Amino acid sequence: MQKSPVDTQPVTNRRVVLAARPDGPATPDCFRLETAPVPPLGEGQLLLRTVYLSLDPYMRGRMSDAPSYAAPVAVGDVMVGGAVARVEASRDARFAPGDWVVAYSGWQEFAVVDAASARRLPDTIPRPSYALGVLGMPGFTAYAGLLAIGEPKPGETVCVAAATGAVGSVVGQIAKLKGCRAVGIAGGADKCEWAVRELGLDACIDHRAADFPTALAEACPRGIDVYFENVGGAVLRAVVPLLNPRARVPVCGLIAHYDSRPPAAGNDWTAALLRAVLVKRLTVRGFIIFEDFAALQPEFEREMSRWLGEGRIRYREHVVEGLENAPQALLGLLEGRNFGKTLVAVSADPSRR
Amino acid sequence: MQKSPVDTQPVTNRRVVLAARPDGPATPDCFRLETAPVPPLGEGQLLLRTVYLSLDPYMRGRMSDAPSYAAPVAVGDVMVGGAVARVEASRDARFAPGDWVVAYSGWQEFAVVDAASARRLPDTIPRPSYALGVLGMPGFTAYAGLLAIGEPKPGETVCVAAATGAVGSVVGQIAKLKGCRAVGIAGGADKCEWAVRELGLDACIDHRAADFPTALAEACPRGIDVYFENVGGAVLRAVVPLLNPRARVPVCGLIAHYDSRPPAAGNDWTAALLRAVLVKRLTVRGFIIFEDFAALQPEFEREMSRWLGEGRIRYREHVVEGLENAPQALLGLLEGRNFGKTLVAVSADPSRR
Repeated sequence: MQKSPVDTQPVTNRRVVLAARPDGPATPDCFRLETAPVPPLGEGQLLLRTVYLSLDPYMRGRMSDAPSYAAPVAVGDVMVGGAVARVEASRDARFAPGDWVVAYSGWQEFAVVDAASARRLPDTIPRPSYALGVLGMPGFTAYAGLLAIGEPKPGETVCVAAATGAVGSVVGQIAKLKGCRAVGIAGGADKCEWAVRELGLDACIDHRAADFPTALAEACPRGIDVYFENVGGAVLRAVVPLLNPRARVPVCGLIAHYDSRPPAAGNDWTAALLRAVLVKRLTVRGFIIFEDFAALQPEFEREMSRWLGEGRIRYREHVVEGLENAPQALLGLLEGRNFGKTLVAVSADPSRR
Repeated sequence: MQKSPVDTQPVTNRRVVLAARPDGPATPDCFRLETAPVPPLGEGQLLLRTVYLSLDPYMRGRMSDAPSYAAPVAVGDVMVGGAVARVEASRDARFAPGDWVVAYSGWQEFAVVDAASARRLPDTIPRPSYALGVLGMPGFTAYAGLLAIGEPKPGETVCVAAATGAVGSVVGQIAKLKGCRAVGIAGGADKCEWAVRELGLDACIDHRAADFPTALAEACPRGIDVYFENVGGAVLRAVVPLLNPRARVPVCGLIAHYDSRPPAAGNDWTAALLRAVLVKRLTVRGFIIFEDFAALQPEFEREMSRWLGEGRIRYREHVVEGLENAPQALLGLLEGRNFGKTLVAVSADPSRR
């Protein structure tokens, strides 16, 4: 990044654009790092300097042009994403330089956004980056999906896939706070060990192990009452036989399927899944957090802040340094190579310890 | 049937037992007609003479020993099923010979049942056989599944498969009574024509026609808000792309899959289905009528009796004569060869016109 003389607006911006749509698994050449001028700041707008960029599985969906709940990123456009940023310059009376905000400002060092779309971080936040994770969209997704769709009752068994990820790690811990047996599924012994030791789950099963379905069944001796779905694929196939009658399945994500090409029709595993829905009277419900549960957000922020303050919720971040490493970090996230909430440190965080 | 001298209990019973479990599609040799002595009548029991036996798709599930919500029929046991019957002899003060009852008394001419398990037909019922259809389990299934899970709102589009069957024909008509656009799916031009002309559906599409998915899309110009699932398979595959965001899918039956062998795992159409659940935020919920909605039954009986009395609900029966023809009639039902609610006339109905 270059700056014009002292204390004036930066003139060039580094950003990552979508270079090409993936055909099958996403690859590094789907992305391109480029420089571009920082656009001029209009009335009511803010110039933001990205401190942390959030990487999340939903971004894979935006790279494709298959119909979805949100428009795809156009080829050549900056990749979308949430960020924690500081106000560099403001033409809105509500914000001043140095303010911390969260904004949907994308994969870039600088962004010009409408002030109305930026949200000031609360002074009470333990770390600014938490606004992208446990106190942000992933934490809220876990909270609302588990409580409003899953409706876990004390003594029930809650199973969560991607149990050490940004969403799953919060799901499992809230399940414990609500008096449930919490069983995680994660990829690798280190993640599983951490989920039990640090998150306090009752068990966590490695889906890469050869005996995964058997081990999962043994960890759920009374079946599964709530399955928080982040994954799909072979993980779901191991879960479905364990679901109890009237189980609830909030469908938050399907990371195992994001890279798939359109499948062929046929008499396939769909029949087995639907049969389980029928004979077990399952409720399977997809949700998009801000469209379905916006009204719950104040309650979430109040409760989660309290739980964090009381040390009842643990939280782990997986920080990758440098915007240029964001593409590899997203690909790693899609393959489960992250461990905790994935962030890209784009510029220095003066609050970081 | 033989009787011992005048006015005493019949001594032999004709019944249909499960001779063998199907492997793939059910066949006539899965059943066997046999005679057996009528068991003695104990205290608190009734001897029933079956007038109408109800045939329903769920019976295919009872023929298999795959885990389900109800125990399978044992090989050699009488096939289960609901019946309208008359009391032949009673050892319970609440019932007298000649009373009309509905009971889960199976595929047989005579049955000894506990009086507590029999339910007297209301005097107001238009015909006794209606207790097995529009005023019985199928009608109640349609009512509760559509209203309590589907939650249709005026102006929404409700789509129902097996639209001329015992359940589907009621679903479509209730959808119209609630101010919805009702689109049926049925097998054959005659059924589709009847669904529009007699049931008053806005459209009914033949799933056997070559242009079925296109024709269905054209009949649902504003998409589908509630899909009442009775079928699965290719019908579901045509419906899913038309489902609107936040659509509701009560899963009542999956007749297209009842004959299938266990499918192989793999990256199959399941992914497409789950992706629709996610990106459209669908609610897919299986239900078993009496286990999930027993509390709604009085309201159902009140409303449905009123609608029938006002001529606002039409109802068609497909009556097969003779217990010995029940196996072929069930196979026909599973293949869609019935037209209306399927009943077997086992003995004379003195009320029949």
